[in-house]
Amino acid sequence: MKVHLLTVGDEILIGQIVDTNSAWMARQLNLQGAEVMRIHSVGDDLADICEALDSALKEADVVLMTGGLGPTKDDVTKRALAEFFEDELVFHPPTYERIQGFFKKLNRDTTEAHRQQAYMPAGAELLHNKMGTAPGMWMEKDNSVLVSMPGIPYEMKYLMEHEVIPRLKARFPGRPIAHRTLLTAGEGESRIAERLAGFEARLPSYMKLAYLPNLGQVRLRLTARGGENAQIQKELDQKARELSAELDSLVFGYERESLEEVVGRMLQQRGLTIGAAESCTGGFLAHRITSVPGSSDYFEGAIVAYCNRLKKELLGVRPQTLEQHGAVSEPTVREMAEGARAALGVDLAISVSGIAGPGGGTPEKPVGTIWMALADKNRVEARRVYAGKDRLKNIQYTSVQGLNFIRGFLLQHYQMAEVKDKG
Amino acid sequence: MKVHLLTVGDEILIGQIVDTNSAWMARQLNLQGAEVMRIHSVGDDLADICEALDSALKEADVVLMTGGLGPTKDDVTKRALAEFFEDELVFHPPTYERIQGFFKKLNRDTTEAHRQQAYMPAGAELLHNKMGTAPGMWMEKDNSVLVSMPGIPYEMKYLMEHEVIPRLKARFPGRPIAHRTLLTAGEGESRIAERLAGFEARLPSYMKLAYLPNLGQVRLRLTARGGENAQIQKELDQKARELSAELDSLVFGYERESLEEVVGRMLQQRGLTIGAAESCTGGFLAHRITSVPGSSDYFEGAIVAYCNRLKKELLGVRPQTLEQHGAVSEPTVREMAEGARAALGVDLAISVSGIAGPGGGTPEKPVGTIWMALADKNRVEARRVYAGKDRLKNIQYTSVQGLNFIRGFLLQHYQMAEVKDKG
Repeated sequence: MKVHLLTVGDEILIGQIVDTNSAWMARQLNLQGAEVMRIHSVGDDLADICEALDSALKEADVVLMTGGLGPTKDDVTKRALAEFFEDELVFHPPTYERIQGFFKKLNRDTTEAHRQQAYMPAGAELLHNKMGTAPGMWMEKDNSVLVSMPGIPYEMKYLMEHEVIPRLKARFPGRPIAHRTLLTAGEGESRIAERLAGFEARLPSYMKLAYLPNLGQVRLRLTARGGENAQIQKELDQKARELSAELDSLVFGYERESLEEVVGRMLQQRGLTIGAAESCTGGFLAHRITSVPGSSDYFEGAIVAYCNRLKKELLGVRPQTLEQHGAVSEPTVREMAEGARAALGVDLAISVSGIAGPGGGTPEKPVGTIWMALADKNRVEARRVYAGKDRLKNIQYTSVQGLNFIRGFLLQHYQMAEVKDKG
Repeated sequence: MKVHLLTVGDEILIGQIVDTNSAWMARQLNLQGAEVMRIHSVGDDLADICEALDSALKEADVVLMTGGLGPTKDDVTKRALAEFFEDELVFHPPTYERIQGFFKKLNRDTTEAHRQQAYMPAGAELLHNKMGTAPGMWMEKDNSVLVSMPGIPYEMKYLMEHEVIPRLKARFPGRPIAHRTLLTAGEGESRIAERLAGFEARLPSYMKLAYLPNLGQVRLRLTARGGENAQIQKELDQKARELSAELDSLVFGYERESLEEVVGRMLQQRGLTIGAAESCTGGFLAHRITSVPGSSDYFEGAIVAYCNRLKKELLGVRPQTLEQHGAVSEPTVREMAEGARAALGVDLAISVSGIAGPGGGTPEKPVGTIWMALADKNRVEARRVYAGKDRLKNIQYTSVQGLNFIRGFLLQHYQMAEVKDKG
């Protein structure tokens, strides 16, 4: 089953709203083994919609269309459908009754615009929309299916789940497709690709590996098309295990987990508390950690010591350390981490000091030079990270590196059998 | 100038990522008076990309393409471009040197995959990408322009702003279109619309006012199309002044300023230092303040006291205050602000404590209940804010409210003639 998604609405073409419907629909269709070949967006324009319908139905078995079914006059989807299918719009009393009932509940009268909403292409099979006034429409032409749905996300989702997907499954009993996603942090895309050259060469022809990099993290997606479902699941699991073994501790999680969730769970499982001492990240590392619901179970607090005075006063960094080595140095972050552990009363403390830019760089310590350290009761470890030139990106990249530093530290010094087995 | 946007990447067709690039690009193009006619997404497939290029270039003057320029082999955009433009991929030494330099800084060697990244269609004009290794490409065919950019948002944005839009403006000098944007914080969209009903009714027919709300801030964009440029500029300035007068202190800035920049400048002009005591925002408020380059001139530091113990130990909140009123209460944030002012040694301290959710709500203090306070040497002021149900949005919304609280406090208690005049 080859699917095209077609979104109608000027608000998308002027960038006023982001088309999140298509991603949601694509995910659902993928889970059903359908392949989305193309996503289009066009404006509220009769000719443009007809042209898009024409090209989409030439290539696809199924075109799922959203948007343009509201009562306002810029919504021309139904007229385009009638024209394209050489059909006429006829008044549909049950739909009008539903619309009237809907507004009666809100103590409002219906207007002529609402009456217009009850005109439907004569050849369309109407799909019941429990969430709103505009029904979905199922139409067929030359063995292809076109479904039109409202663009309001919860109405579209209701129709997809209750009407469209069940009908599509019956109509196109198809070949399964499946994915496994591995999440990595700590290496770049090309370095990983190098390590995986052998693995990729051994992949069967119906499997594909994709690299999705983003600021210090790379998601690896294994996709398999065709074949019998249970078999594919088994083979994918096998290949995902191989991939995981090849990359070892680079892999921090699977599917839709975030690094902060994984680190939080590791801390929780080990019964450890954590705190932070931040300079250049200015609170962003603490924010990442606390963006996870329930993070108060392991995160106690942080000290953002942006000026050197507070590095001394609140974190106990010695004046001579700052004078001799500077705020962005290994000795300083070591003392910051130890000081934070004491001041915050936590098991682990991470510290970060660097030059986020755009100012503050020197030839020896250019913008993007970052030092970080981690302290527990037995040790302090430090590392240097090189970020780039962009201030916000540097802050974000550094927070990823910091989270991954914590993860590596826990793997090395706080090994747990049950955690290891999960990998 | 008619534009098509074309996004390449399997990750979009399987719904793994939402295409936010297209909305951003559409907005920028719109501001330039360009019309986006269609948005397409296709997978990492040579034939599909060529077909999409073919149909897009038939209809559009300009096709802006993103994605598929990484070093891994699932990225086929360049091969598709070479095929479509009947061009060949040639090795481009300066690009390879840039890539090598990029990795040298990271103390890493380049791999064969990186070398492949330096192959470019011979006929492409390369656009310098300061943010990453893959340059943009500008190609022309039959009077149409095709631009290919990496799909990573900050790389695409850099290329759009610094290379693509300036070139498009030179290449397609269109009818003048002009904008003035006023930035407000502290009131919702509908309340502002109510206040502006009279103003909107008096707008000339060729001017339009758009409301762009976003988490506690509303941008108001005045747009004028057609007519002679200088005259439009003058009239727009006049209307923008009227609008600013109508909304008074709701307006915090103009065009692309951020609230944190404006607050930072106000602090700097007044020679004041600031610090923060954060609970529910977990460092995000400090992050917002320190996202501004040069913020170390006025921001000294913050204490993220996520647990009650640290509210007592580091901020001096009295145990009986927490027992009697709870962590999310006016007395607690007042003591947090005073304690932070003392602990951080700053002129002003802001404190925040609230229930970000999804857990922790009660009937009296539901999720989204936020208290904040501001202290200087003469006073402590507190206010309550109601956020929503979503954790991350609550954190972001609260940080906007916090920044706007600081702004209001400065306007009220630290009035400056020269600042007043700027409004």
